[in-house]
Amino acid sequence: MIVRPHQHWFRRLFSWRGAVLSKIMFRLGLNLLMSIIAVISLQWYETLGVHLTTAPFSLLGVAIAIFLGFRNSASYARFVEARTLWGTLLITSRSLLRQAKGALRRDPAAVAEFTALLLAFSWALKHQLRGTDSSDDIRRLLPADWQNEVLNSPFRANRLLLALGEWLAQQRDRGAISDLLYNGIDHNLNTLSQVLGGCERISNTPIPFAYSLILQRTVYLFCTLLPFALVTDLHYMTPVVSMFISYTFLSLESLAEELEDPFGVDANDLPLNAICNTIERTLCDMNNEALPPPLKPDDRFNLI
Amino acid sequence: MIVRPHQHWFRRLFSWRGAVLSKIMFRLGLNLLMSIIAVISLQWYETLGVHLTTAPFSLLGVAIAIFLGFRNSASYARFVEARTLWGTLLITSRSLLRQAKGALRRDPAAVAEFTALLLAFSWALKHQLRGTDSSDDIRRLLPADWQNEVLNSPFRANRLLLALGEWLAQQRDRGAISDLLYNGIDHNLNTLSQVLGGCERISNTPIPFAYSLILQRTVYLFCTLLPFALVTDLHYMTPVVSMFISYTFLSLESLAEELEDPFGVDANDLPLNAICNTIERTLCDMNNEALPPPLKPDDRFNLI
Amino acid sequence: MIVRPHQHWFRRLFSWRGAVLSKIMFRLGLNLLMSIIAVISLQWYETLGVHLTTAPFSLLGVAIAIFLGFRNSASYARFVEARTLWGTLLITSRSLLRQAKGALRRDPAAVAEFTALLLAFSWALKHQLRGTDSSDDIRRLLPADWQNEVLNSPFRANRLLLALGEWLAQQRDRGAISDLLYNGIDHNLNTLSQVLGGCERISNTPIPFAYSLILQRTVYLFCTLLPFALVTDLHYMTPVVSMFISYTFLSLESLAEELEDPFGVDANDLPLNAICNTIERTLCDMNNEALPPPLKPDDRFNLI
Amino acid sequence: MIVRPHQHWFRRLFSWRGAVLSKIMFRLGLNLLMSIIAVISLQWYETLGVHLTTAPFSLLGVAIAIFLGFRNSASYARFVEARTLWGTLLITSRSLLRQAKGALRRDPAAVAEFTALLLAFSWALKHQLRGTDSSDDIRRLLPADWQNEVLNSPFRANRLLLALGEWLAQQRDRGAISDLLYNGIDHNLNTLSQVLGGCERISNTPIPFAYSLILQRTVYLFCTLLPFALVTDLHYMTPVVSMFISYTFLSLESLAEELEDPFGVDANDLPLNAICNTIERTLCDMNNEALPPPLKPDDRFNLI
Amino acid sequence: MIVRPHQHWFRRLFSWRGAVLSKIMFRLGLNLLMSIIAVISLQWYETLGVHLTTAPFSLLGVAIAIFLGFRNSASYARFVEARTLWGTLLITSRSLLRQAKGALRRDPAAVAEFTALLLAFSWALKHQLRGTDSSDDIRRLLPADWQNEVLNSPFRANRLLLALGEWLAQQRDRGAISDLLYNGIDHNLNTLSQVLGGCERISNTPIPFAYSLILQRTVYLFCTLLPFALVTDLHYMTPVVSMFISYTFLSLESLAEELEDPFGVDANDLPLNAICNTIERTLCDMNNEALPPPLKPDDRFNLI
Repeated sequence: MIVRPHQHWFRRLFSWRGAVLSKIMFRLGLNLLMSIIAVISLQWYETLGVHLTTAPFSLLGVAIAIFLGFRNSASYARFVEARTLWGTLLITSRSLLRQAKGALRRDPAAVAEFTALLLAFSWALKHQLRGTDSSDDIRRLLPADWQNEVLNSPFRANRLLLALGEWLAQQRDRGAISDLLYNGIDHNLNTLSQVLGGCERISNTPIPFAYSLILQRTVYLFCTLLPFALVTDLHYMTPVVSMFISYTFLSLESLAEELEDPFGVDANDLPLNAICNTIERTLCDMNNEALPPPLKPDDRFNLI
Repeated sequence: MIVRPHQHWFRRLFSWRGAVLSKIMFRLGLNLLMSIIAVISLQWYETLGVHLTTAPFSLLGVAIAIFLGFRNSASYARFVEARTLWGTLLITSRSLLRQAKGALRRDPAAVAEFTALLLAFSWALKHQLRGTDSSDDIRRLLPADWQNEVLNSPFRANRLLLALGEWLAQQRDRGAISDLLYNGIDHNLNTLSQVLGGCERISNTPIPFAYSLILQRTVYLFCTLLPFALVTDLHYMTPVVSMFISYTFLSLESLAEELEDPFGVDANDLPLNAICNTIERTLCDMNNEALPPPLKPDDRFNLI
Repeated sequence: MIVRPHQHWFRRLFSWRGAVLSKIMFRLGLNLLMSIIAVISLQWYETLGVHLTTAPFSLLGVAIAIFLGFRNSASYARFVEARTLWGTLLITSRSLLRQAKGALRRDPAAVAEFTALLLAFSWALKHQLRGTDSSDDIRRLLPADWQNEVLNSPFRANRLLLALGEWLAQQRDRGAISDLLYNGIDHNLNTLSQVLGGCERISNTPIPFAYSLILQRTVYLFCTLLPFALVTDLHYMTPVVSMFISYTFLSLESLAEELEDPFGVDANDLPLNAICNTIERTLCDMNNEALPPPLKPDDRFNLI
Repeated sequence: MIVRPHQHWFRRLFSWRGAVLSKIMFRLGLNLLMSIIAVISLQWYETLGVHLTTAPFSLLGVAIAIFLGFRNSASYARFVEARTLWGTLLITSRSLLRQAKGALRRDPAAVAEFTALLLAFSWALKHQLRGTDSSDDIRRLLPADWQNEVLNSPFRANRLLLALGEWLAQQRDRGAISDLLYNGIDHNLNTLSQVLGGCERISNTPIPFAYSLILQRTVYLFCTLLPFALVTDLHYMTPVVSMFISYTFLSLESLAEELEDPFGVDANDLPLNAICNTIERTLCDMNNEALPPPLKPDDRFNLI
Repeated sequence: MIVRPHQHWFRRLFSWRGAVLSKIMFRLGLNLLMSIIAVISLQWYETLGVHLTTAPFSLLGVAIAIFLGFRNSASYARFVEARTLWGTLLITSRSLLRQAKGALRRDPAAVAEFTALLLAFSWALKHQLRGTDSSDDIRRLLPADWQNEVLNSPFRANRLLLALGEWLAQQRDRGAISDLLYNGIDHNLNTLSQVLGGCERISNTPIPFAYSLILQRTVYLFCTLLPFALVTDLHYMTPVVSMFISYTFLSLESLAEELEDPFGVDANDLPLNAICNTIERTLCDMNNEALPPPLKPDDRFNLI
């Protein structure tokens, strides 16, 4: 799904991929400025009797690194959970289609209707999470008699789940599916409901705002004061070391913020379009239909 | 559900949102006072031969940071679990209504009764967790013949679960639902029981009190003694660095305590009202009924 | 269930609750003694050319803090798992009673027998985990015809589970419960079996003994040698700083040991009596019977 | 199952239990030797202009402590998972017997055959994990007509699972168990299959070899070079501090290696014999048969 | 499955197994070069007034160690999850065959067909994850009438799952399997679908690229600058200490990258061939067929 390029380690060091660097450019520039001010003002600064020594900054830096490690774990856990939920969507879509084909072996029309509802569900979920309009995809995928009901609902993905349940109840009512098989399929519809609710939870509930705030404040303040602490020891080397340390802290802080909301279209976010495309391709293959072409990453190796 | 504002990083630094700062103001002020005392008394203090050097405080600071990282993980895990349980409540309410509508396609009255019991359950749980009175919401939502039974119970949310089970048994008894579908719905009632029990557990069992106590004691004592350790190196810069370090430790300690009980109405707690409102809106939409208006965050971006 | 007192942060600092302090009093006293010896013998000690500097102790202190953080996580995970198992016991007891009432709507006598077996199971489990005698509670709760079988077994909680299974098989045999409902209830009996086995596992398998031993040894030795490392820098301040650092390490080590076995009657252990009482109250309420009074915490805010 | 002795904290410090100390004795002795060489050669060494200062070793020590913390977590997670799998074996054996007794209330001979297969499964799994011969236990437990099939298989535990499935299919074929109860029991056989596969996975897949290797190399090299870094500061105290630091690192590294394979017969490994014995005792009790005597720990508090 | 050699600890230190060393050889050589440059240019370098002191590098080193610990945890979690998924494949294959044999006791031909489909699934999954061609194995294992359908699909493993579902539906249609047993087997097919989707997820979604990049950059830059920071203190010892520290950081960074994609054929990757071979052996044994020979590790103790 996602093409994973193996660049040589040396070329990767100077790569612009990942794009975090561009986000922290301004703050790194600010740090460079402070470093230069620190170096220039050093003599005047020492006559004033103002000292900032490395020791308290060392303590503070380690403490911030520990808390930043915690924040990165929390953000990364959200990213992994989001990816797992979308993986479950793929898995469950396949399982549902396998079950439907097994239960309705001689009714490909009903299976095709079911497939359309499944595909519409994954695209509608993608649009809901990214705040884009799902109308076009719903019109493209759904049979006409389901379209209005879904398009008029403020909760389109959930409405599609309801439609899947309705389809299933219809099959049972007309005797095509026994209660037992109904239960087996219904169990997987519950799983789709869990995927939907799980994605909504990640999307709607950020990491408590105070965490981001406290860490951003301390990281920025730390990077701003750092040159003044380093300059008495390092003199002309202050900008190099200070920017190096700042890069480490700022980039990880910035990445943690990017991963916290994994459904966006940033470089490190989940490629929801590609996953929806994969679901569509795999379900079409199971129905022996023509496959839509796979999505390809762009020049910067990104998929969205 | 929760509107997540994207402020510019620079403006966020000076934001008052998150409200942790206001809670630790007094303690930060105390730290400032100690810093000033340390600076003023430095000369007299050195003649006494009393030294507090940075090295042992550096060791202690790192140790405290490690333990504070542990405490933050534990508190955040409770927050995440609480949020996941409420997400499961939303998911399971939708699944239950989908199942009921599939099983009772021609009996909207019974489905409406079931919906009312489901909605009353989520509001009753919210009131139970916040220690508020659920009577008004129960009277608003429930049909008259269920009201007394629920209002007279000391365990209202659990009594509503019992009522859901009773409703289900009635449907089976009158032949509207087969034993198989009964089992499928009953399975999701077990999930609601898990949500209820899980929330009660988080609400009733704090992190062992000794953890909070040991960490609060060490953090406060550390912040109080810190200026005296820094002053010999930093002189006039002591208040700045000391308050910076204190802010980092005190704010994270304070936030950990706030997140430990995620069902309160603090700025970083879970917006239970908004989640109940979402559940109500989504179930109404599934029944093609008019939707109540969504809750909006207040001026400080908070929902409760 | 557990009343959680909100003391003012200032009063908490001097609180004796949590009771860890009393356990490490002797070791803290030892540390004070070593500090005083270090201060007194400093001059004689320096003429001998014996140095203990802070640097290696700083490295060692951080390493020990990291390992202590790991040990605390492991102990706390046991505490959380134990609490979750007891939460599951409450949840499953309620679900089972809801299922039994739904299946046997017109046979309150059979439901009462089932309730008695459920209640006896939770009390028997509590007694088993604490090593106390469950005979009185079993005689109080069980009908006479089940008593002997249970009292004669060395595995009373498991025997009660077997009795619950026997009750269920009897209901199926006499046609009161269909095979489908039988399966649904049996599934929850499996969950009770998991609760029993999980509690036995936590109770019988401590964290590998070598972990406790290595950490206790290093923490005690570290605290004992620390004054001699600090004294050259800190002179008269040695006892203060040394006891502060020792308090942090010793109290967390002591708490980790306390939490490792969460079924005891220490201040930070699980209030099993209160949980059993809650289960009894909630099941009685579901059967519309009179509720036993709730347990209250003692003067030191502890429940057992 | 495992008797957990509560020694006084003071006596534990000098205890030989846990047996890690004996494993690292040689390496600690090597460290002592290096310390003595460092102290003796100090003067000659300083004239050479060779310096090893504490600062880089402090950085390295903290880094190693962090990685060692990671390795300990990974090893301990394996230990906990292994213990949980064996707990699940106990739980599921009890549940299966409860189900079999409920389904075949009037056929104790069939239940006895089922019990024999269950017991043989747990002993066969123990022998498989420890690489010992299970023939004696299989002959002791199994009826003659099942023995040959199991003894001739290279995968005896799995073959016993197949036999349990075969027994179940026989009961269904002769009409003793309905398809529904068949499914309920079969579900727990799947759980036994998970226990088997999980134990095989832990036993066959160590933590990637490179982790052990990198950490062992760095820990040993670190401990070997450490005396030369400490000696300029500590002089005669070098052996004491150096051995203390080495003890902390070496013993935790050694314990992590021991826990990585929890199915062995080391002091900190799982007492599989005792768990098998407990399973046998609890199933015999459920069948009202005479119980085999419980296993007791040896003089050094160890069970195997 | 994987033979785990127990070398003596002393010989392991100089072992070339694990092969990480060979990957970082070039970068370690670079570090040696920088160290030598640092030692040679020291005097000229000091006259310039350029200082790089250890203190900021100590802070940076600890911060990097913390972040590297996080990256190692994330990579190792992927490795463990991948291994667990393959363990689940083994477990579920056995369970499915046990269920099929129980349901179709008198139809070994149908069971043999089912076994062939199961075996083809695991080999096809292996080939898919490693990007190799599964045609030979599919032709070797599958009956002729299934071959074309599978070989023509771009998603062969998923197509085999569909074929398993088709086989199951055929058995139900011809009355060989009741709906209840159908559901029990179908449930395990869902599990196979989860294994397939989980492996695809791990294979297709690397850890966010920015993490690798930021850490690689900071680790390489850190190791490159380190000699210049150490040289003022350590003089001639700089290359030794610098290479030691670099080895620790570079090797763990390199191993984390290797484990991140556990389906490759590196020394520390999962031995998928061996696991497929074990699945084949265990299913053949269950069918009382001749077993293929087990795979053996090569001279360097590696399996692929």
